[in-house]
Amino acid sequence: MSDDINRAHNEAMKALKAERDEMMREKRAGHGLLMVHTGDGKGKSTAAFGMIARALGWGFEVGVVQFIKGKWKTGEKEFFRRFPDQVRFHVMGEGFTWETQDRARDIAAAEAAWEKAKELLADTSLHLVVLDELNIALRYDYLDVNQVVADLQARPREMHVCVTGRNAKPELIAVADLVTEMQSVKHPFDAGLKAQRGIDF
Amino acid sequence: MSDDINRAHNEAMKALKAERDEMMREKRAGHGLLMVHTGDGKGKSTAAFGMIARALGWGFEVGVVQFIKGKWKTGEKEFFRRFPDQVRFHVMGEGFTWETQDRARDIAAAEAAWEKAKELLADTSLHLVVLDELNIALRYDYLDVNQVVADLQARPREMHVCVTGRNAKPELIAVADLVTEMQSVKHPFDAGLKAQRGIDF
Repeated sequence: MSDDINRAHNEAMKALKAERDEMMREKRAGHGLLMVHTGDGKGKSTAAFGMIARALGWGFEVGVVQFIKGKWKTGEKEFFRRFPDQVRFHVMGEGFTWETQDRARDIAAAEAAWEKAKELLADTSLHLVVLDELNIALRYDYLDVNQVVADLQARPREMHVCVTGRNAKPELIAVADLVTEMQSVKHPFDAGLKAQRGIDF
Repeated sequence: MSDDINRAHNEAMKALKAERDEMMREKRAGHGLLMVHTGDGKGKSTAAFGMIARALGWGFEVGVVQFIKGKWKTGEKEFFRRFPDQVRFHVMGEGFTWETQDRARDIAAAEAAWEKAKELLADTSLHLVVLDELNIALRYDYLDVNQVVADLQARPREMHVCVTGRNAKPELIAVADLVTEMQSVKHPFDAGLKAQRGIDF
């Protein structure tokens, strides 16, 4: 290999290392992040569950409210319920949205889920609170976005929150610390493949 | 609420329910997916770890090879190593990339990691194999992308694979069943906040 290629490579690697070192320097800034996972692609809820796994690895406690899941069994629920000392997992979506087609009932379900979320947001023992598919409830105006934002901002300073769901509201994005859009480049349902256990749910 | 609004809502919810029902109809198609998480945003590896949690919830076994992680402690490693019966977790990245700035050593590390990956890809007991940050090794041509694609395609038919890392190669995207691009809309490092334990690692 030529010296030039090696030198260019070394420079690139040094730049990456400097960036990484800077990121790693202060491992805990003490400032809880408001994170939003949105977009039409996959991975919004799944990345939130990955964060839960990381938090559990460090010994932290975590809260979860699922806003729109139905009664079906999911891998995440089955798995995280194995850790009752570390995870408070609340599936509030029974009767919500596509199962009922009843707007009044959906609003009541969303409001009940938000009450549960507020309990978690007031619990200083939690490192991370995941509000899974909250964006759907906001999108259909089942909850008032300004009230939700106010409640989120009133949480303990060190608490991280991750909100998932497509079509995140601009009011939420405006106050978030981190917003990631999952975009679908290629999707297997397009090719006639079905949702699969242990991958999609 | 007016009847019109309720009717429009019901139509929208029925459409959503039909889509969801179709997705749920066949829960296990028997066709393993090749999934790629790429893009500059967060959530690529994290969503892969969330899939692992889901798979564990269903009682499946999972393999992981991390291609570029250094020696530092990560939440995912600490957590998933609690499940030695279900998770084969291999951190192969020691000495890789930004820690060494030595291309020959990086190539050797990538090749060793790929050998480990091939072992997992031949293991029919695994439901899912996560090849974390493989895209980085491919991007720098530490591994031959055509050989990697051929090895991936030779895996057992039912095995799911998830490859993560920014700058996924076109050759890999071409053969993938599902490609999601995580795009950063807003990033806290921009605002001077640091990587945080239990969230970023």
